Amino acid sequence: MASPQDHAYHLLNEYSNGFMVSQVLFAACELGVFDLLAEAPEPLDSAAVVARLGTSSHGTELLLDTCASLKLLKVEVRGGKAFYQNTELSSTYLSRGSPVSQRNMLLYTARTTYRCWGHLAEAVREGKNQYLQAFGVPSEELFSAIYRSEGERLRFTRGLQEVWSVCGRSVLAAFDLSQFPLICDLGGGGGALARECVSLYPACKVTVFDTPQVVRLAKEHCSLLEEGRLGFCEGDFFKDPLPEADLYILARILHDWTDDKCSGLLQRIRRTCKPAEHVVALT
Amino acid sequence: MASPQDHAYHLLNEYSNGFMVSQVLFAACELGVFDLLAEAPEPLDSAAVVARLGTSSHGTELLLDTCASLKLLKVEVRGGKAFYQNTELSSTYLSRGSPVSQRNMLLYTARTTYRCWGHLAEAVREGKNQYLQAFGVPSEELFSAIYRSEGERLRFTRGLQEVWSVCGRSVLAAFDLSQFPLICDLGGGGGALARECVSLYPACKVTVFDTPQVVRLAKEHCSLLEEGRLGFCEGDFFKDPLPEADLYILARILHDWTDDKCSGLLQRIRRTCKPAEHVVALT
Repeated sequence: MASPQDHAYHLLNEYSNGFMVSQVLFAACELGVFDLLAEAPEPLDSAAVVARLGTSSHGTELLLDTCASLKLLKVEVRGGKAFYQNTELSSTYLSRGSPVSQRNMLLYTARTTYRCWGHLAEAVREGKNQYLQAFGVPSEELFSAIYRSEGERLRFTRGLQEVWSVCGRSVLAAFDLSQFPLICDLGGGGGALARECVSLYPACKVTVFDTPQVVRLAKEHCSLLEEGRLGFCEGDFFKDPLPEADLYILARILHDWTDDKCSGLLQRIRRTCKPAEHVVALT
Repeated sequence: MASPQDHAYHLLNEYSNGFMVSQVLFAACELGVFDLLAEAPEPLDSAAVVARLGTSSHGTELLLDTCASLKLLKVEVRGGKAFYQNTELSSTYLSRGSPVSQRNMLLYTARTTYRCWGHLAEAVREGKNQYLQAFGVPSEELFSAIYRSEGERLRFTRGLQEVWSVCGRSVLAAFDLSQFPLICDLGGGGGALARECVSLYPACKVTVFDTPQVVRLAKEHCSLLEEGRLGFCEGDFFKDPLPEADLYILARILHDWTDDKCSGLLQRIRRTCKPAEHVVALT
């Protein structure tokens, strides 16, 4: 029965405090703790972090120690003072300079998803997303909240790509896609999955199809168009003509839309796909 | 190095998704899922839950299955249909009728703490709480946000008490308090810890000191004044005379205030305490 040592009571507290753990991670990313420690030539004490980040002393001490308890930082005590450095987790996945950094996705989650999830009970009651309550935009116009500033748009577009730096190769290798010379990645954003694809399948060409704003950003921020094997095409995949292809990829796309809209999109792809219908939907 | 199977990557995702786990727990409490299942004579399917709670079908299905995956519910499939019932965790700690229910505290956390923690990065930057950003009240007036409606005040006051139904006895038994005939619980709310105290130490009398509003609620909602051994006294512990006592308890009180305010309070107690200074601060 009920006691502070009870396993169920422990689990309950872990669940209930889960949002605090998320926020410690998000806040340390947002404030640049992991970037600072990645660039510092040696471990830093709290005062040095405060001086460089311009944060409060007390708040920073608490944040650093909480990060250490979560294994997001390593702490070493010398002469009665604590010195902090990144762990393998934070140097690999959290510092801005790492090729597999997940920082943009975490910041997007902190600023957008966390706020919507504050209204989960209402979402279950009504059966719809809570962008109206969280951001004042109608639920079907969620992207106007997600793209509410140029900074947020860039963060989201980059964030969506970050997962592929860790998981893209495994996902694409799970199927043999070598039989498809022409591939179209619908809603493929900055082209990170497309890049993994042309690297894994040397014979294919990939067209990334996305909205004009996303394509513009992708072209600005991604200089390398791999020897003509990777191209971008802009439009609205619900209305505009789709690029011809032997295989269509929908990676983390369908979950954004109602069943009706998804059904319409899949029918459009079916009509365009040649020679047979090949759609890989990763949602 | 980075891979989807990497332990560090797994931990990162667990941290990043922690707020979703919290919100699933909070939403299911808020909507009354655990209360309904506790009162139902047999496991219910999703349609029955929808009919009783007036929630959306799709949202409810997702919520019930997520609760099952978190072991907050048990699921049993009969004739192709899933039927849900409480686990020991949810019937013990989450259903309204359980004597050790933590429901009010969870709802307070969901409605107040979760919102403030959405501004953690700013809190660390500024070194102060974020009631202004979350609720529009100055940081030193946090209680006007916490008590923003009669319902919220009741939820918070009850919620604070709930922890003692699980942990109170262990905390009070950690010290031998039998030498103190007169005890004062400062900020003791509804008197739950005081009740554990008079039950554990048969010779003592306990006075609960709290604000007029809290004392009024405590008297309305807690009928049993254990044979004259438990009393309530109202006032502001920073200004008004404190009840005389041999021992003062400050349980989860000091963390709400600045060091200066805490120091002033402890000095006031020292002047009142007889015959020696006995303060147990549980923060």
